[in-house]
Amino acid sequence: MNIKITGTGSYIPDTIEKNNAFLEHTFLNNDGSIINYPNDVIIEKFQAITGIAERRYAEPHLNSSDLGFFAAEKAILDAKIDRETIDYIIVAHNFGDVKHNAIQSDMLPSLATRIKHSLRIKNPKCIAYDILFGCPGWIEGVIQAKAFIKAGMAKRCLVIGTETLSRVVDKYDRDAMIFSDGAGATVIEATEEAGGILAHETASHTYDEAYYLHFGNSNNQELCKDTRYIKMEGRKIYEFALVHVPQAMKTCIDNSGVDIKDVKKIFLHQANEKMDEAILKRLYRLYKTEIPEGIMPMSIQKLGNSSVATVPTLFDLVKNNKLENHSLTKGDIVIFASVGAGMHINTFVYKY
Amino acid sequence: MNIKITGTGSYIPDTIEKNNAFLEHTFLNNDGSIINYPNDVIIEKFQAITGIAERRYAEPHLNSSDLGFFAAEKAILDAKIDRETIDYIIVAHNFGDVKHNAIQSDMLPSLATRIKHSLRIKNPKCIAYDILFGCPGWIEGVIQAKAFIKAGMAKRCLVIGTETLSRVVDKYDRDAMIFSDGAGATVIEATEEAGGILAHETASHTYDEAYYLHFGNSNNQELCKDTRYIKMEGRKIYEFALVHVPQAMKTCIDNSGVDIKDVKKIFLHQANEKMDEAILKRLYRLYKTEIPEGIMPMSIQKLGNSSVATVPTLFDLVKNNKLENHSLTKGDIVIFASVGAGMHINTFVYKY
Repeated sequence: MNIKITGTGSYIPDTIEKNNAFLEHTFLNNDGSIINYPNDVIIEKFQAITGIAERRYAEPHLNSSDLGFFAAEKAILDAKIDRETIDYIIVAHNFGDVKHNAIQSDMLPSLATRIKHSLRIKNPKCIAYDILFGCPGWIEGVIQAKAFIKAGMAKRCLVIGTETLSRVVDKYDRDAMIFSDGAGATVIEATEEAGGILAHETASHTYDEAYYLHFGNSNNQELCKDTRYIKMEGRKIYEFALVHVPQAMKTCIDNSGVDIKDVKKIFLHQANEKMDEAILKRLYRLYKTEIPEGIMPMSIQKLGNSSVATVPTLFDLVKNNKLENHSLTKGDIVIFASVGAGMHINTFVYKY
Repeated sequence: MNIKITGTGSYIPDTIEKNNAFLEHTFLNNDGSIINYPNDVIIEKFQAITGIAERRYAEPHLNSSDLGFFAAEKAILDAKIDRETIDYIIVAHNFGDVKHNAIQSDMLPSLATRIKHSLRIKNPKCIAYDILFGCPGWIEGVIQAKAFIKAGMAKRCLVIGTETLSRVVDKYDRDAMIFSDGAGATVIEATEEAGGILAHETASHTYDEAYYLHFGNSNNQELCKDTRYIKMEGRKIYEFALVHVPQAMKTCIDNSGVDIKDVKKIFLHQANEKMDEAILKRLYRLYKTEIPEGIMPMSIQKLGNSSVATVPTLFDLVKNNKLENHSLTKGDIVIFASVGAGMHINTFVYKY
């Protein structure tokens, strides 16, 4: 028995927020002091590092669970399955449904419950739950689906990552420009077909790193201290990722029995272009091998960082030939990997 | 190989909130109208139905993840394990960390991350994640631990349920009196010892029932519409539970091969005394059998409904002979069951 992704779908919001939308922002340092550069310079530097030229924002009337539902509908359609045969709906997110211009997270009921309700699935044996695991939540959901299938507790799982980070950013913080909204969904199934998940690896580095990403106050110290936003220690995260992500990927590749030379694509969490490139470089350096051309599809330039949604969305785009110069052929070895709040890292090696 | 609970711990906050603390509240109907009874009558009726005489509130400086950490420390001590050998930390909750007198849920990083950090566990292979599954979250965490163990992905899991519902109640709503704070934790392990989990059953009824429990506005219609609270349709939940919980339990008992006459204790989610008694009555009616005396330990009278924490706390109390007239003997067959937001139901049959 193998475990394969039999359907994919994504929801990319229509609203494009370009970098110049931030020209009128007041950007402050963490201590509340003004940043001593004009905004066009701040934005230019930001784009040079992260690669982000624009990002997507969900329409005001839509919430994270709506985005997840749209992606899920597409994945079910793509997998050509009867939705009543789904055993698990696993939804990864970080903030629940946050209404436009509100500050409360709404997770009662869970987003998986809402999505199952919207999908009009009747079968009570289809178990719907949410997982919180930072940006690597969608990959961890896939790994949990693998566990249920291997344990004989499921045959078919719907794994969704959905997020509206635009609603939890501090507009006084330059990092506000990183974050984006979106959703990706996949159907994961037990199958007799060749390929599928060959190995996986997960790690939670919480001893020193637990609060590298956290919920904190605005850089504008005059704002209410009871209102908090997504905050990150970018430098520390960058250094952490560079040490630990390539090593976790190498362990996973070695456990899978795959030769690094046979890897055709690497779907990395779209956090920061420079960081992703540095991770790639380090990974290939561990194997003392050249980086093959076109191995790492990137969507961050246009889609920003939508947390749990980046990896399934990227895979969906490449699978459907919607990302220039990237495609997949049956039998291709690919790697999925992510890193984020926790700090959690996970990765799996997959034969398409 | 069997899967057993090898350690338990709970954290019951010191602060006791008695029913008479609600004498000065202004209780309103859902539509904002005044309830036409004096508060002492409202409270008396409330106690007659729910059984709740008092409940516990976390101290203002503590959050849900702190409560979970305290319970986890005890469970680890009780299991006599090296904490660095834990493969998974699974934390069930519904609202994240909600600071005293604040309205935002803080789940960045996840509560599992925070608890692992507080436990000073270094091992990055110990995977820490949160699950949102309504009140049945702790039981579902145990079932997920079972999946990881059966799939060969874990040997030892720490499963925690923690909640501070006192911080999400609408004080204008009589239901505010139901909810409570607390945490329960258990170590779940693969073992060669006899007994353990014999069967489990989970169901997610989301088609009509998804919003029976939801996040909604205060009954005081003059309060800000952007601030929401835990809300429930009590009558619908009661009727739903009475139809579906006994049936799920029967399916699970039958699948386990256990004779109903051999069941020694039933650990039911402490939602409402009358509802729990009605569920028990229906279950035994399905078997056309008398209800054995002392089969159902109850803690709701003193501890209220602390959501995900009620079942592991109740088990911990009985196991440690801290609930009058209740005890456990090696080899006893017991049942755990819960129902809550989703609407989710789950249950497992366990040989102590």
